[in-house]
Amino acid sequence: MNEQNAEIKPYVIGLDLGGTNSVFGIVDARGDIKATTAIKTGGYSNVDDYVAASVEALQPIIEQVGGIEKIKAMGIGAPNGNYYNGTIEFAPNLPWAHNGVVPLAKLFSDALGIPVALTNDANAAAIGEMVYGVARGMKNFIVITLGTGVGSGIVVNGQLLYGHDGFAGELGHVTMVRGEEGRACGCGRTGCLECYCSATGVARTAREMLAKTDRPSLLRDMNPEDITSLDVSIAAGKGDELAKDIYEFTGKMLGEACADFAAFSSPEAFIFFGGMVKAGELIMKPIREAYDAHVLKIFKNKAKFLVSGLDGASAAVLGASAIGWEV
Amino acid sequence: MNEQNAEIKPYVIGLDLGGTNSVFGIVDARGDIKATTAIKTGGYSNVDDYVAASVEALQPIIEQVGGIEKIKAMGIGAPNGNYYNGTIEFAPNLPWAHNGVVPLAKLFSDALGIPVALTNDANAAAIGEMVYGVARGMKNFIVITLGTGVGSGIVVNGQLLYGHDGFAGELGHVTMVRGEEGRACGCGRTGCLECYCSATGVARTAREMLAKTDRPSLLRDMNPEDITSLDVSIAAGKGDELAKDIYEFTGKMLGEACADFAAFSSPEAFIFFGGMVKAGELIMKPIREAYDAHVLKIFKNKAKFLVSGLDGASAAVLGASAIGWEV
Repeated sequence: MNEQNAEIKPYVIGLDLGGTNSVFGIVDARGDIKATTAIKTGGYSNVDDYVAASVEALQPIIEQVGGIEKIKAMGIGAPNGNYYNGTIEFAPNLPWAHNGVVPLAKLFSDALGIPVALTNDANAAAIGEMVYGVARGMKNFIVITLGTGVGSGIVVNGQLLYGHDGFAGELGHVTMVRGEEGRACGCGRTGCLECYCSATGVARTAREMLAKTDRPSLLRDMNPEDITSLDVSIAAGKGDELAKDIYEFTGKMLGEACADFAAFSSPEAFIFFGGMVKAGELIMKPIREAYDAHVLKIFKNKAKFLVSGLDGASAAVLGASAIGWEV
Repeated sequence: MNEQNAEIKPYVIGLDLGGTNSVFGIVDARGDIKATTAIKTGGYSNVDDYVAASVEALQPIIEQVGGIEKIKAMGIGAPNGNYYNGTIEFAPNLPWAHNGVVPLAKLFSDALGIPVALTNDANAAAIGEMVYGVARGMKNFIVITLGTGVGSGIVVNGQLLYGHDGFAGELGHVTMVRGEEGRACGCGRTGCLECYCSATGVARTAREMLAKTDRPSLLRDMNPEDITSLDVSIAAGKGDELAKDIYEFTGKMLGEACADFAAFSSPEAFIFFGGMVKAGELIMKPIREAYDAHVLKIFKNKAKFLVSGLDGASAAVLGASAIGWEV
């Protein structure tokens, strides 16, 4: 960032645009979040209404830091965000962007009168880790976000991997189970990593394991449709063997996937981020074990397996804001 | 490259170090190969003997271009070559480097008195394509080499992807068939892309298909153990349906693998290189079809599928030589 500019315009706006909530933060150059606000992402049928509601919510916190003239730029982390074009393209979970190309960066830029950069949410998390988190000083690493979906941000040679079209790093959609056995994925294909290792994938595994066997489990006290990955994690924490096996299955698949990812970019570290990471060693141990069992000999015992140290809620906003400094 | 230097030292040596042959070329800045020589790679029990034999073979062609003082550097493309260290590490097909770390760049540098850079053979092919081939002007592409094994060189943001340890880009060893059904691979694991889509993989598929069915085929006239991918290609060229199905199977798996690779680095093009590519549309058509059927929606109809236009024998030497200019 330009130091002189940082004095005159000492803040950037970060927007963590999720399927449910849109969280805004005004952030200074040291990564301190000075003010935040939020709106529901899905409550708008078209993007113009969404941007108008966002700007209205932003006004008070912009005033709080001294007005828009104190703000250098805005960074957005959003599903299916395209860094090159500033667009969101065919994002299945966004009602106003599920079936087309939405020029969100330009719309915000026009509405606020500042430059706006946009990338996908997992890329924003990767930048957040590089600027403020456990990836400080690393040139090659992969952030894997385990939330409602599975996302990834890949850094090589110290740069985010955007690829030819801006969409590189969709590791949630590598195929882990080929053929008819693969679970149906929200992307329209089958067998994607995301169908198994997202929070919803874990809940799906729970329902499958409960239906296929008559093993006892605390999870049998619940309506199967209501089970979440958090319930599985809590049951496992109480020693429930079936629940532990669900995390074992999930971690094993993630570890096998990481072994393939190593063959691609040979990262210094895999960094796990998102709600599911709260399960701790329940998920991290089978990840490491499956990785060691499956990775090519030349990569053995090289990569670190880390958990994001950033507070989940603020990390995504910080990551989004970090791309604002680069505009 | 430095123009002034190029005048004083107008040549580099390129070494394409394969499992069978080691081919040397002296190359000028325009990519013209001025002189070549070769030795057998495997005919030496230790690396010192290999280097000594190489230097002996090189002497006449070095003299031919005016002596070692005309040569800026040497570039080596070798299996399991590590760009960062200049070493070959645990290369299963090299008798003098199959079970350890061999500092080949340093040994050649000491013997010849010039700087030496080394990378794996597929990375060298990728640089060859970028400098002299179909990838000129591209910033993001993947070269997949289909030979005795399956190798890859990945370019992102105009740079070769070396990863944290120098070994990134081992796409022949992503797992395509998980579990017990996977074929045993030379790397000690099972189900790798290489077990199916290398020349030896194609021959293996032929033997399996011949054994599993009683379908008629020209290949039945041969001893199954003698069948090569070239035989399959020739039979397919004569309209043999079983032989065509073998290439269909092979191309389909490559296309599915490329769909996963797109999720990683979203390249502008996949470039296929090596002996198997001579099968032409027999293999390229199922690759494209399987890619289109399996790739994530946002990547559809974006990537090009190209065949290397460089002459196979010289391309590897040119690629190896190209890294010599960068020393």
